[in-house]
Amino acid sequence: MKFGKPKKKINTFYPPQRTLMGPGPSEIHPRVFSAMGRPTIGYLDPVFVEMMDELKELLRYAFQTNNAMTFPVSGPGSAGMEMCFVNMVSPGEKVIVCRNGVFGGRMLENVERCGGIPIIVDDTWGQPIDVDKVEDAFKANKDVKVLAFVHAETSTGVASDAKNLAKVAKKHNAFTIMDAVTSLAGIPVLIDEWAVDACYSGSQKCLSCTPGLSPITFSDELIEKLHEKPNKNKSQSWFLDLDLLTGYWGDTNRTYHHTAPTNSLYSLHEALLMLQEEGLENSWFRHRRNHQALKAGLEALGLNFIVDKPHRLPQMNAVSVMPGVNEADVRKRLLAEYNIEIGAGLGDLAGQIWRFGIMGYSCKMENVMLALCALETVFSDMGVNVEVGTAEAAAYKAYASHPSNLKIEAVA
Amino acid sequence: MKFGKPKKKINTFYPPQRTLMGPGPSEIHPRVFSAMGRPTIGYLDPVFVEMMDELKELLRYAFQTNNAMTFPVSGPGSAGMEMCFVNMVSPGEKVIVCRNGVFGGRMLENVERCGGIPIIVDDTWGQPIDVDKVEDAFKANKDVKVLAFVHAETSTGVASDAKNLAKVAKKHNAFTIMDAVTSLAGIPVLIDEWAVDACYSGSQKCLSCTPGLSPITFSDELIEKLHEKPNKNKSQSWFLDLDLLTGYWGDTNRTYHHTAPTNSLYSLHEALLMLQEEGLENSWFRHRRNHQALKAGLEALGLNFIVDKPHRLPQMNAVSVMPGVNEADVRKRLLAEYNIEIGAGLGDLAGQIWRFGIMGYSCKMENVMLALCALETVFSDMGVNVEVGTAEAAAYKAYASHPSNLKIEAVA
Repeated sequence: MKFGKPKKKINTFYPPQRTLMGPGPSEIHPRVFSAMGRPTIGYLDPVFVEMMDELKELLRYAFQTNNAMTFPVSGPGSAGMEMCFVNMVSPGEKVIVCRNGVFGGRMLENVERCGGIPIIVDDTWGQPIDVDKVEDAFKANKDVKVLAFVHAETSTGVASDAKNLAKVAKKHNAFTIMDAVTSLAGIPVLIDEWAVDACYSGSQKCLSCTPGLSPITFSDELIEKLHEKPNKNKSQSWFLDLDLLTGYWGDTNRTYHHTAPTNSLYSLHEALLMLQEEGLENSWFRHRRNHQALKAGLEALGLNFIVDKPHRLPQMNAVSVMPGVNEADVRKRLLAEYNIEIGAGLGDLAGQIWRFGIMGYSCKMENVMLALCALETVFSDMGVNVEVGTAEAAAYKAYASHPSNLKIEAVA
Repeated sequence: MKFGKPKKKINTFYPPQRTLMGPGPSEIHPRVFSAMGRPTIGYLDPVFVEMMDELKELLRYAFQTNNAMTFPVSGPGSAGMEMCFVNMVSPGEKVIVCRNGVFGGRMLENVERCGGIPIIVDDTWGQPIDVDKVEDAFKANKDVKVLAFVHAETSTGVASDAKNLAKVAKKHNAFTIMDAVTSLAGIPVLIDEWAVDACYSGSQKCLSCTPGLSPITFSDELIEKLHEKPNKNKSQSWFLDLDLLTGYWGDTNRTYHHTAPTNSLYSLHEALLMLQEEGLENSWFRHRRNHQALKAGLEALGLNFIVDKPHRLPQMNAVSVMPGVNEADVRKRLLAEYNIEIGAGLGDLAGQIWRFGIMGYSCKMENVMLALCALETVFSDMGVNVEVGTAEAAAYKAYASHPSNLKIEAVA
């Protein structure tokens, strides 16, 4: 080894140009890439500090909140998730965790590792969280401190009723931790209106930014109450300590905490600027519209959604694999022959479903039509009975019946 | 707020082009920026998985190790630090923490938050860690599990004797956690030869990559012993759990853990490839050579190093502010008039020192000469007595007497 070179000759890495229609990352607009490649500057540079303030303001718009502590955590969504739990859950405190997919299970892991006492409300994967069951869990358990739930389950494509879940928590004097990794910018996320106390998301889904950042927001009231907590201990995480990060991202000062991921933050700034230019409502509408077309096409190919209609996420479409078809082969061929990535099932749903993500910049007509055409071709090659052109026709009809005139401004 | 736009008009962010000579981030080579802007692909894409394997191999070269678990943590150096502590320190276990600067203090914070019992070995800031005092601490305390120390203290510019510190730990059957954030690629870091058990670094220092990643390595023996630990609990962090990350970055399988920061990893791959092309020894030599020139120039300007000669880090040069000079004014003028960032003092050294970082791509003749010329001009403008041209002449002499013929291959 002494100063030796690696055995294998390693060259510059040139990734292929994929059409990303999986569970994320989603595709990235050239403007966002361009921002990412701008010169790195110091994290205490006055120009950088100004950019940080703008980032907070742009994130407040995305989250529809006035919360002071709204900023991107310097790590992926799971770091954002952990930041909520390590600052809000003390050992011995009760937390109701709703679990209707992979990411609810991850929340449970977080509660346990913080020494919290989890009260699990299970729902079938693919079903939304049952608000009544959550209400019952509150009634059956005194002194619950936190309700934790996933707004948009990436593993199944189901949306839960965030507004009423937050309401139940408030009624029982508990704080809410909401996972909005897949929902933010794809469907309404109204932090202030719903009175959600803590919420985290990811940069690589409907925001269409480079993966590795976790936008997060904490209500002013939550922060105040956390400070007033008797016998308050330091958070078990130094990296994710809310007090220290308030010193770094807060309004009054900039105390060095860690070296910010400069270039990723540039790209998030640009992605959020594009969201502001498009307008949140237009972004929600774009996701709905492309979903209608994709759905029409997939159903025309004989594929059935695993989530019932009113609870379907437009940005994450999970359909059952038809009997006799090798799930993995289809994905492999889409990737190898058409450069299209779609998602597989996770956990209990492995091998059972495909997941078609249309998030952020991946949510556009060309991707929908390409996916349908490629899927039809692959099915046909594999001997699955498909009627040529029906998927495309169905998608076209859906586009035609959902005109884009709600779109107020176009994205460049 | 309802879907409202931010009050302030926000535009695309164009950072200025700075000469980065602070404590990091350092400047980034165009090849590395170019890699960062390549198309994002999925984290389970077979092409991406291959790139991950290459990254591990390139990092093994940088760390001079054969350790299987050598990979970049998806967060800054402080996440890498925390990953070591949350996986290696159980509540009630004794940890010797060496503290001779800011980052030793941060290690102490980590021990406390893991429920460990810290035994602090303090040394004066600017002095290396006293190996004899560490030996005494082991003798005075039975059953110490871990020795934690910083190899290269960024806050003062001092190098400690990592080889002998690791030796003392081994002798007393303790594991070693070493902070190599500022040392890696700037001075020798020989993980296997020194038998260091766990070591983390940062992407944004002598590797000259975008900030936000923490290269890390764990010895095979350490991982085995952690598995054999009686009453082994889950790590208190889900995001930084070594077992889960072994499933993600390990050799045998790729179990989804989090969405990797794709584009930052591309840039690290390219930065490490450039390090391999240059050769570690050449990189160390380049840092020493430019340090000799910078030092000669700074001393010609009447500035004194706070670290004694044999312990000075070439890549981080801390000098005392001369009496009567406003420390912050000098930094502000260098930034405003010459686009040069240099570092201030941290903690007890705030207002007392300047820190000149020449790390990675920032470590080059043009930066050294620019910094000296700009500093001389600023001093002169501020009425500090300087003899025109002496700094540049001294630097030139140092370059001439340290010829670059040790450089075997040039970086493109």
